[in-house]
Amino acid sequence: MSRIPVAILGATGTVGQKFVRLLDGHPWFEIVAVAASEQSVGRPYGDLVRWREPGPVPESVASLVIQRCAPPLDVTIVFSAIEAEIAGEVEQTFARSGAYVVTNTKTHRMAPDVPLIVPEVNAAHLDLLNVQHKNRAFSGGIVANPNCSTVGLVLALAPLHQIFGVERVFVSTMQAVSGAGYPGVASLDILGNVIPYIGEEEEKIEREAKKLLGTLSGDGVQEARVAVSAHTSRVAVIDGHMATVSVGLSQRATPEQAIAAWTGFRGDETVRGLPSSPAHPVEVDLRLDRPQPRLDLERGAGMTVTVGRVRHCPLLDLRFVTLAHNTVRGAAGAAIQNAELLVTRGFVERPA
Amino acid sequence: MSRIPVAILGATGTVGQKFVRLLDGHPWFEIVAVAASEQSVGRPYGDLVRWREPGPVPESVASLVIQRCAPPLDVTIVFSAIEAEIAGEVEQTFARSGAYVVTNTKTHRMAPDVPLIVPEVNAAHLDLLNVQHKNRAFSGGIVANPNCSTVGLVLALAPLHQIFGVERVFVSTMQAVSGAGYPGVASLDILGNVIPYIGEEEEKIEREAKKLLGTLSGDGVQEARVAVSAHTSRVAVIDGHMATVSVGLSQRATPEQAIAAWTGFRGDETVRGLPSSPAHPVEVDLRLDRPQPRLDLERGAGMTVTVGRVRHCPLLDLRFVTLAHNTVRGAAGAAIQNAELLVTRGFVERPA
Amino acid sequence: MSRIPVAILGATGTVGQKFVRLLDGHPWFEIVAVAASEQSVGRPYGDLVRWREPGPVPESVASLVIQRCAPPLDVTIVFSAIEAEIAGEVEQTFARSGAYVVTNTKTHRMAPDVPLIVPEVNAAHLDLLNVQHKNRAFSGGIVANPNCSTVGLVLALAPLHQIFGVERVFVSTMQAVSGAGYPGVASLDILGNVIPYIGEEEEKIEREAKKLLGTLSGDGVQEARVAVSAHTSRVAVIDGHMATVSVGLSQRATPEQAIAAWTGFRGDETVRGLPSSPAHPVEVDLRLDRPQPRLDLERGAGMTVTVGRVRHCPLLDLRFVTLAHNTVRGAAGAAIQNAELLVTRGFVERPA
Amino acid sequence: MSRIPVAILGATGTVGQKFVRLLDGHPWFEIVAVAASEQSVGRPYGDLVRWREPGPVPESVASLVIQRCAPPLDVTIVFSAIEAEIAGEVEQTFARSGAYVVTNTKTHRMAPDVPLIVPEVNAAHLDLLNVQHKNRAFSGGIVANPNCSTVGLVLALAPLHQIFGVERVFVSTMQAVSGAGYPGVASLDILGNVIPYIGEEEEKIEREAKKLLGTLSGDGVQEARVAVSAHTSRVAVIDGHMATVSVGLSQRATPEQAIAAWTGFRGDETVRGLPSSPAHPVEVDLRLDRPQPRLDLERGAGMTVTVGRVRHCPLLDLRFVTLAHNTVRGAAGAAIQNAELLVTRGFVERPA
Repeated sequence: MSRIPVAILGATGTVGQKFVRLLDGHPWFEIVAVAASEQSVGRPYGDLVRWREPGPVPESVASLVIQRCAPPLDVTIVFSAIEAEIAGEVEQTFARSGAYVVTNTKTHRMAPDVPLIVPEVNAAHLDLLNVQHKNRAFSGGIVANPNCSTVGLVLALAPLHQIFGVERVFVSTMQAVSGAGYPGVASLDILGNVIPYIGEEEEKIEREAKKLLGTLSGDGVQEARVAVSAHTSRVAVIDGHMATVSVGLSQRATPEQAIAAWTGFRGDETVRGLPSSPAHPVEVDLRLDRPQPRLDLERGAGMTVTVGRVRHCPLLDLRFVTLAHNTVRGAAGAAIQNAELLVTRGFVERPA
Repeated sequence: MSRIPVAILGATGTVGQKFVRLLDGHPWFEIVAVAASEQSVGRPYGDLVRWREPGPVPESVASLVIQRCAPPLDVTIVFSAIEAEIAGEVEQTFARSGAYVVTNTKTHRMAPDVPLIVPEVNAAHLDLLNVQHKNRAFSGGIVANPNCSTVGLVLALAPLHQIFGVERVFVSTMQAVSGAGYPGVASLDILGNVIPYIGEEEEKIEREAKKLLGTLSGDGVQEARVAVSAHTSRVAVIDGHMATVSVGLSQRATPEQAIAAWTGFRGDETVRGLPSSPAHPVEVDLRLDRPQPRLDLERGAGMTVTVGRVRHCPLLDLRFVTLAHNTVRGAAGAAIQNAELLVTRGFVERPA
Repeated sequence: MSRIPVAILGATGTVGQKFVRLLDGHPWFEIVAVAASEQSVGRPYGDLVRWREPGPVPESVASLVIQRCAPPLDVTIVFSAIEAEIAGEVEQTFARSGAYVVTNTKTHRMAPDVPLIVPEVNAAHLDLLNVQHKNRAFSGGIVANPNCSTVGLVLALAPLHQIFGVERVFVSTMQAVSGAGYPGVASLDILGNVIPYIGEEEEKIEREAKKLLGTLSGDGVQEARVAVSAHTSRVAVIDGHMATVSVGLSQRATPEQAIAAWTGFRGDETVRGLPSSPAHPVEVDLRLDRPQPRLDLERGAGMTVTVGRVRHCPLLDLRFVTLAHNTVRGAAGAAIQNAELLVTRGFVERPA
Repeated sequence: MSRIPVAILGATGTVGQKFVRLLDGHPWFEIVAVAASEQSVGRPYGDLVRWREPGPVPESVASLVIQRCAPPLDVTIVFSAIEAEIAGEVEQTFARSGAYVVTNTKTHRMAPDVPLIVPEVNAAHLDLLNVQHKNRAFSGGIVANPNCSTVGLVLALAPLHQIFGVERVFVSTMQAVSGAGYPGVASLDILGNVIPYIGEEEEKIEREAKKLLGTLSGDGVQEARVAVSAHTSRVAVIDGHMATVSVGLSQRATPEQAIAAWTGFRGDETVRGLPSSPAHPVEVDLRLDRPQPRLDLERGAGMTVTVGRVRHCPLLDLRFVTLAHNTVRGAAGAAIQNAELLVTRGFVERPA
């Protein structure tokens, strides 16, 4: 079976490397091009990359010569992990040239005609691509996944929102250093320490959650009426964003009802069969001291969010803890799942 | 000048050692007795203790022979850092025998006639000792300080409560491992990890905050009408409990007004001159990424709470971050300051 | 195909859990019994174990009821991860009853008639079992694997020893906390710290290395004439024992010659095909800053030792760094590989 | 009493900040100028510095406007913590202009006419300044302190060398991240990890130790005949370089004799009274698991080296562990002590 040719922009960075590893052996996609910044162009990927994923660089990618982040790369799908500063122009250029850009970068997330997607949560929003085609004269398109700290929250909220309605959310995160890329957080800053600030992170959570939980309506997304207050902190963890959450619901729910909502949650039918979709988007662990990054991160190959400590909240209705793998479910894995959705939804032709 | 003789119960443990170090050179108090569990009795403190404080064991204490945790120890004040399981009986026995027991243990904290004190917050509650004398036929008495995670929150809330009235509190903590004593948290559990559960901690915060912010009324404390929702987590930090906090107020306040309240907060006049009272019980640090345990813990010799990231909350009124030194302001230092208050309030005679 | 029935003694501990996970789906062995200390007996394994391995407890084991550490458990092979204090008697009882005990415990390692085995290094020593049968009237037998810090060193030394002769070894380890079991090292002791002492560890390395590199001669092992000086330290790493090593050789070797020796090393032919034998027992990584626990531990499913920084030593001949997975190659994986060797060497009958 | 005016080059960096804090309140020196790289020039130090030392920026320094790293700064002594790449020229320019440059930078350390000094070890080498005056037509001069990982080793070796003669040294370090400056080591590289490589570090230790233990002879230093083999690793510790050491001596010594040598070590008489000289340059801690960075670093205000685990070495004569505060004794404190030596040795005039 022939596979769909894909490229990775920003292939040498932390998220770029994660793309390379997660796409190795992917049933539908084949990396045929890697692109990075000017000073890396022309060198074999395997020679240049400071590889930090487990195992060696996949051989088929190691020998690819790094190209410029510009079309044509002769691919159908472009995975983008480039700097926000240049993503605006670069990603649009690819979309204009006919490629579908599946981006992890923040730049286009909140644009009204760009679908911001977590497949199990809002696959229907993908139809915004049609608006994009119209608005921007793209023959391809741009699809975004949310920020790494948003996704764990939203996957925990969506099942509650669908059944009970979520109106108010307090969330306080404890985020891993990998979320800041490499070199990212200095060891002198985080060893034995907590940093109670991550630039722009709280704003991202607060606004992206509303779009993700919103409803497609005409040519746009009607944002959900959810008031969100986010505190974000960095902790000395490699991978895994934790969050403590309290929610106020439109319709009261017991912890047991919430657990049933999470346990039964599967997402849209078109999403269930995707290669990257976990059997359970949300798992509930009832052990007193779970979830924990070290023990629960790899559920569903990093695509499952774990919820724990579900209990009544003295201020709102419910409170709980959520954990997501920030570089898989919160970055590269999210984008790959979105690309898979492009296939099952017919925007990209299924491999023969 | 002669000093007031004091004893330490549980002197070999983590908090016990902190008592020994903080009392070394204290202007009013002199350690004349150390007590610990049965198997340690009869051995010199310096030989037995597995000392983990900086510097050597103070010489005057090193040579003290460890005694049983039972009267008489020929002291006026007893600092207690013993296990909750035995504290109930032991501490009462000392109080009955005429000593003032200043305890860091949870056992008596919520008893209606036991003053639970943070001097700057509710020094007046100390008068519950008179009720205790009456109720229990104590010639001495028992005074408690709050749990290590409560104190940083309450010192941040008190200045707001006095001026604006605090009605609702959402708090999510990130607590240091020293809060669990020694050996306490296993390294396999916490290295590169977060544990989103600390036994009984959320309940302690929720109930102690109400008593501390309450009002002395007749023979008891009228608890403050504050709804508190606490999430507590353990992080890989040695010392320093952080918390992200959102508050709803009776009377709206801007961040600037809150900052003015914290900055101007000094506590009762009888408290300001105490040897352990810091010049500023609460300091506000406006730098974007503060407070941090590694950089801000030692303010006011560990007795000052640092507040930062003061901003509007989309759900309630204000949100901010607070940091307290859990083994100083949250344990041994708190108890010593309470003992000092016993002196200035006349329960214990001032040294000649 | 039927599989060989095996039991695990000390099945609820850190190493015991690792046995359970590594044996899950093993082609030759099937866990039919789990045993632990008295207070756990009678309860289903899945209910009692405080499981810390990734993924859930394998279902077939979860339902096993915990038994006493005493025969008969109706098994052919017993994997032992019990306390050294009781291992002496318990393990012999099983061997007497006809089982082969493959032990990770130190107790019998240095007994003259007990084979201390790293299959690639000294598979031939397994014949000591015949001496054991004779000496001790065992119908089964006891086989030991070395201490977790010895194995990485010895696998790096063996290829050099076979070709050039190793005479002198200076080794300084940096060992992971998992080597101390659970709860093991207190977080207050190791966070942001190094502890330059591990009880008995230096002695174990120094004496076990000599036996492992020795020669079977008559009814015993002639220890290798290698002088070893070991320094051992504990660092804040979860898994992975690193060591810096300098060696003096009988016959001088260049770094290139040493690299060729390691790269070509495969171990005895009977060892190569074992299910747990990695394709490469030793891999050399020439990148300047390797090996590192976080990046190189999982080579060969944790059974490959990584050697790096190979260079001339100003004092002896060569120096280098070695890294081994202490709970796989240094504990459970080592024992399983030894059990596999029992099969290929005919001590245990191959499954039909 | 008037104090000697001093400047700090590279004042905003990690070591620069340490200089500012350690010189605050110094009895002999007063910071009157701070200099840094071009983009910082013209701004008040307190506004620009990303201060990471405990406590606030000393007020007298906070208001100083940052100057260029070029004379004249109207000072007698210049403390240099600038990049090695520019230090060669900059430091010589200052020395030519009449200032004494006390440098922590590696650039001039091994120049034959530059004294490389640890006051207690080789104060006499300071007379190389006279050679420097002659050779280079300096009216001032350049004095260097060794690399942060060399100093703890050399202070442990010197007392042995003086009495027994040190001939061979194996050393394996475990170094703190602060040794790499800020941002320095990425948290993704070191959390839960060990990096067995530090650029140039082994070479520095091996060559600097020989010069420091050497003898002034004519116009140069006759290097000590000591063969040193160094392995260097980075561990997840903030401050404190540990090393395991084995030594071969000219004249055999027991552990007891070595301990007596360390305990009795004071250094030259002109060194003992210096403000930064600790009462004991080397302290021996005989507890089994000491020294440890977290517990022993602050002895002698960070200027005392702690030696522990003294025992016989199966390969050489003795082995032990040594710990030094890398940013105090190994950097800023070392340079300040060297500057004090310039005063007592008459190169710089004593304050009136």
